[in-house]
Amino acid sequence: MKNFLDRDFLLDTDSAKKLFHDYAEKMPICDYHCHLSPKEIYENKEAKTISQLWLSGDHYKWRAMRSCGIDEKYCTGDASDKEKFEKFAYALQYCIGNPLYHWAHIELQRYFGIDTPLSAKTADDIYERANKAIAEGDFRPQSLITRSNVKVVCTTDDPVDNLEYHKLIKELDDFDCKVLPSFRPDKALNAHLDGFADYIGELSKVSGVEINGYKDVITALERRADYFHSVGCRVSDQAFEYVPFAPADDVEIDAIFSKAMRGEKITAEESDKYRTPILIALGEKYHELGWAMEIHIGAIRNNSTRRFKALGADTGFDSVGDCEIAITLSRFLDALDINDKLPKTILFNLNDKDNTVLATMLGNFQSAEAESKIQFGPAWWFLDTMDGMTNQMKSLGNLGVLGKFIGMETDSRSFTSYGRHEYFRRIMCRLLGQWVEDGWYAYDEDILKEIIEGISYNNAMKYFNF
Amino acid sequence: MKNFLDRDFLLDTDSAKKLFHDYAEKMPICDYHCHLSPKEIYENKEAKTISQLWLSGDHYKWRAMRSCGIDEKYCTGDASDKEKFEKFAYALQYCIGNPLYHWAHIELQRYFGIDTPLSAKTADDIYERANKAIAEGDFRPQSLITRSNVKVVCTTDDPVDNLEYHKLIKELDDFDCKVLPSFRPDKALNAHLDGFADYIGELSKVSGVEINGYKDVITALERRADYFHSVGCRVSDQAFEYVPFAPADDVEIDAIFSKAMRGEKITAEESDKYRTPILIALGEKYHELGWAMEIHIGAIRNNSTRRFKALGADTGFDSVGDCEIAITLSRFLDALDINDKLPKTILFNLNDKDNTVLATMLGNFQSAEAESKIQFGPAWWFLDTMDGMTNQMKSLGNLGVLGKFIGMETDSRSFTSYGRHEYFRRIMCRLLGQWVEDGWYAYDEDILKEIIEGISYNNAMKYFNF
Amino acid sequence: MKNFLDRDFLLDTDSAKKLFHDYAEKMPICDYHCHLSPKEIYENKEAKTISQLWLSGDHYKWRAMRSCGIDEKYCTGDASDKEKFEKFAYALQYCIGNPLYHWAHIELQRYFGIDTPLSAKTADDIYERANKAIAEGDFRPQSLITRSNVKVVCTTDDPVDNLEYHKLIKELDDFDCKVLPSFRPDKALNAHLDGFADYIGELSKVSGVEINGYKDVITALERRADYFHSVGCRVSDQAFEYVPFAPADDVEIDAIFSKAMRGEKITAEESDKYRTPILIALGEKYHELGWAMEIHIGAIRNNSTRRFKALGADTGFDSVGDCEIAITLSRFLDALDINDKLPKTILFNLNDKDNTVLATMLGNFQSAEAESKIQFGPAWWFLDTMDGMTNQMKSLGNLGVLGKFIGMETDSRSFTSYGRHEYFRRIMCRLLGQWVEDGWYAYDEDILKEIIEGISYNNAMKYFNF
Repeated sequence: MKNFLDRDFLLDTDSAKKLFHDYAEKMPICDYHCHLSPKEIYENKEAKTISQLWLSGDHYKWRAMRSCGIDEKYCTGDASDKEKFEKFAYALQYCIGNPLYHWAHIELQRYFGIDTPLSAKTADDIYERANKAIAEGDFRPQSLITRSNVKVVCTTDDPVDNLEYHKLIKELDDFDCKVLPSFRPDKALNAHLDGFADYIGELSKVSGVEINGYKDVITALERRADYFHSVGCRVSDQAFEYVPFAPADDVEIDAIFSKAMRGEKITAEESDKYRTPILIALGEKYHELGWAMEIHIGAIRNNSTRRFKALGADTGFDSVGDCEIAITLSRFLDALDINDKLPKTILFNLNDKDNTVLATMLGNFQSAEAESKIQFGPAWWFLDTMDGMTNQMKSLGNLGVLGKFIGMETDSRSFTSYGRHEYFRRIMCRLLGQWVEDGWYAYDEDILKEIIEGISYNNAMKYFNF
Repeated sequence: MKNFLDRDFLLDTDSAKKLFHDYAEKMPICDYHCHLSPKEIYENKEAKTISQLWLSGDHYKWRAMRSCGIDEKYCTGDASDKEKFEKFAYALQYCIGNPLYHWAHIELQRYFGIDTPLSAKTADDIYERANKAIAEGDFRPQSLITRSNVKVVCTTDDPVDNLEYHKLIKELDDFDCKVLPSFRPDKALNAHLDGFADYIGELSKVSGVEINGYKDVITALERRADYFHSVGCRVSDQAFEYVPFAPADDVEIDAIFSKAMRGEKITAEESDKYRTPILIALGEKYHELGWAMEIHIGAIRNNSTRRFKALGADTGFDSVGDCEIAITLSRFLDALDINDKLPKTILFNLNDKDNTVLATMLGNFQSAEAESKIQFGPAWWFLDTMDGMTNQMKSLGNLGVLGKFIGMETDSRSFTSYGRHEYFRRIMCRLLGQWVEDGWYAYDEDILKEIIEGISYNNAMKYFNF
Repeated sequence: MKNFLDRDFLLDTDSAKKLFHDYAEKMPICDYHCHLSPKEIYENKEAKTISQLWLSGDHYKWRAMRSCGIDEKYCTGDASDKEKFEKFAYALQYCIGNPLYHWAHIELQRYFGIDTPLSAKTADDIYERANKAIAEGDFRPQSLITRSNVKVVCTTDDPVDNLEYHKLIKELDDFDCKVLPSFRPDKALNAHLDGFADYIGELSKVSGVEINGYKDVITALERRADYFHSVGCRVSDQAFEYVPFAPADDVEIDAIFSKAMRGEKITAEESDKYRTPILIALGEKYHELGWAMEIHIGAIRNNSTRRFKALGADTGFDSVGDCEIAITLSRFLDALDINDKLPKTILFNLNDKDNTVLATMLGNFQSAEAESKIQFGPAWWFLDTMDGMTNQMKSLGNLGVLGKFIGMETDSRSFTSYGRHEYFRRIMCRLLGQWVEDGWYAYDEDILKEIIEGISYNNAMKYFNF
């Protein structure tokens, strides 16, 4: 029996060990998509307990706890930090096969120096030791980022955001990591959701564009994109249940826009007609600016109305959808490509049944503008597991060019989540090491070094021009 | 080369062997969903030949035979028992990779004491030895159940059933297994199928409820649920090609109901509108009674009209559908959850492309009412294979809490099919044993014992309150 | 570390080695579906450089190159043969995990006698050695086919084709391989695409049938099928984005036909209504002729309009769709089966999410007309990878009868692509060998020999009556 989470965790061949320890492990981190708060990075406050670090905002952990029948009081409620940690430790011991189990233990080892497995039995002891480590060490955000060897962080930001914290962070003398904004225009696109009219009002104010129709929305977003660019933004992000694509004429689109602005409910079809020209215009803008366009496909959100009313969004009540995506995605990308204005694009799926669709969609729109201009995004959210990551890399390997993959980002809200890059790299080296070990890929140290360092870090830095 | 089907069949690591032989193997069986006949259990008649036991009602075996070009005469027709067995043995030798191959050999070993591999060559010899074992031993249903260490059997029953055999079985002195009914209201829901009006007439008679509209259907079903509860029922079951969810107003629903009662064809959309309020009302009733609600999604049935006319339903002409399921399933569960009336629920998919959808859907509706109140049902029917079971457990492990899984049921029509629990447990121990062996899960004997015994038996007993 | 691509490439157990070297390796090839040009076979011209052999028509290779950011000039453009080869070699080194990497090296070894791994470093040397091998050896199509031990080749032909080259090849004295046409009526079915009316005009002329309505289209196609049969055709092929099935009445269908003949755009629904009766009539014709009907499901084609305009079809801009297929496919097969006129049928999917649907669909329509009359086609195109093939065989093994599988075809446009049969057989022996080695299938040399030789060659020869 191999020791739990030792130096060679997940590395089961000599080739895997070599590739990880000689190359992957040493590379810095380019975290090109996450949900860290620039405000928190700038303010740099320290948590007092491991529960504050781990359990105050992590819906992955809350879901695991709820799945064990643990009362909401111990998740998002008013139980004490210690009680919450105990409940979490109890739940964790049943999470065999879950990445949470690995993430938690990697973080305990790397940040707290604790290699005791966490369970109900060990919870109190570990709680004390972890809090002691916090008290004695430096667990402030900037320190955690620096210790994790992170060179770039791209946060996720609304077009109306003034990005003041990004600017402040840039001025910091003793913090080297680039913290850049990303442009996520979802609220301007979601005319079918509550609050749309208010949002458009805010967008108008911030952009200085009077908004009377959908073309004004485009103008306003373009101005904000220019502003974001000036603060260092190089990435945009949009998230869809499915990929909307429904061309319509101007008059109809403006009628839909007006309807939504009056607060009336619009249909899914109407929403798609409104979104289509905006997405195309934004794509062209991203292309002009040299940005990469991220598309996250397939989450269905806020499934429990009861919980959404009680706790709000992003609290652990989202799951994976199964809409058809191939044809509208193709049409959307083609609508940009046809005028040679398709930006660099990264496609993410939340349902692994779509791996083959995405990994083959890439090939339709590659060009000499970049190496693997169209990227298959790393396994995302629910798929950010050993199986999910392995399958994504196998799909890309089978159907595209894995050696040009830009690799991992955390997509996380937590400052201790950089262990996920280590986790990814171990899994990547495990997979490629296996192929080399089994004589499926010719051993050539120079090439393998380039591939491993590329997927770990270099490919992303080059792709985004960071 | 490892011996075929020896003591350590499927157990390829020391950890797997330990987990299986020390824990899983010793646990009794809780078969919480099957299609055994309570009448046959009560009457306790013995088969005369292995063909009668194996080939008289098993559509898995018929499908394999037909796939080898074997004439229907040898499947459901009038060939002799011996001829049928010979043809089956011939077919089986080509079934490399099929669970049928493993099931058949596990049954031969466990029930008949025969460890010769079955093939065309050995068919006659095995036919004789098996029949001799039947003649000399006790192969009656109650004995097979008792020898298999089965503590609970949940049959599948129609709401109009009077459950007389369940009552009679309860009175048996020398038979310890609980044989409980399950409530399967499909016929009351399928207003789009032939025979609906007659069925509603029968339901009316049995329940004593005059049925003039869909609300009367609900009342009648609720009364029958109460009656089923009094006879020990704790589980309901519904099966869908896709999950219907289409709220409509009372007047429209009653118009649809009337149309169907007149024997007119209703559309799929009308059928969904009729089913939606009934399913919600039933869900609330199940919640009130503390039952678990099973939902089986994705079979398309009676695909060959020609064979359906000749042989009827459940004869091997069903297969796997691919409808979208995420959104309507979410809406349906939410409609119950919003009033805090969602019962314990077990979600089964027949298409493995839906694993990720289901395994993440669970997490939207968990609560403190039960440990993993929403369960991902074990790999069902066509997925009841080594790959299917492994993938289901990996999905649940990756995306939920595998340690709280209620584990296997047979879903079978055969009294020798309990070997499928052994098969499941070997595969489960193989998977978890591999994880432990590879240092992916910290070895802790107490916790592993609890998890293995839990998934084998204890979790289900606790979940259903048996 | 195992040597790259040695004698036991992919064969990781003793059983796998034995099954491959003793049985699979020795069998001839029946290539029952490909896109070779009968004209090229007949004319038997030799390429001058490896680039002409490898890079002049292979969209797999172009896609890999484009994915590395290589300019179109080096793919389909006017760069020199040597430059193209160098660029391809550069791209190939990043194709870790891609079957292209294996195919290329298998071909280098088997046809050129070169076992140096191909990369940017070795490109020039290999380019010279390969061209020398061509200059000194015999790389003409007939020789490559003969050297590859191919007994049957089924090309893919349009119903209007006069099949003159098939006839000429038959007359060749010193070429033993049967080169047979296949009947692919897609153009007569695609009333929604440009050029339909012209095509129908041509069909009318060639068949001698005056075409005024859809029934005349059927008559014309039936006549051409008879003609194809007389030249040796035993296979038909149709390809769909999804399976169309929409019964309509004659008047409506003829109205749709007329509309399309006038060059007007018809809707998807109209197209399906037109195709449905033709497909049924063709299915009946195939049944009468004893042909096998291939159905290829799930490609979405010419996704990049820009590239389609520049380069035409089949140039590497197709990818995988995700339409629902189960219900209409079932209805279509049932419409033939209901009158006992369903021909032998081979179902191919391009999206692996459909494996379970297809592998279970088979079982609905098997009969005594043939062993596995309904076949699950081997992993196709994008799925023609180690994972894709393994998954297809596991699906078939789990859900059908793998021992009656007709095995591999190349689906290729290249005369050096027969290495894909070797690749398939290694993967097949790897999988079955593993099962035997692990004690999951009883070792019986006679049976295993029959299964391996069957899947390699014999099953197909028997199935098609070649």
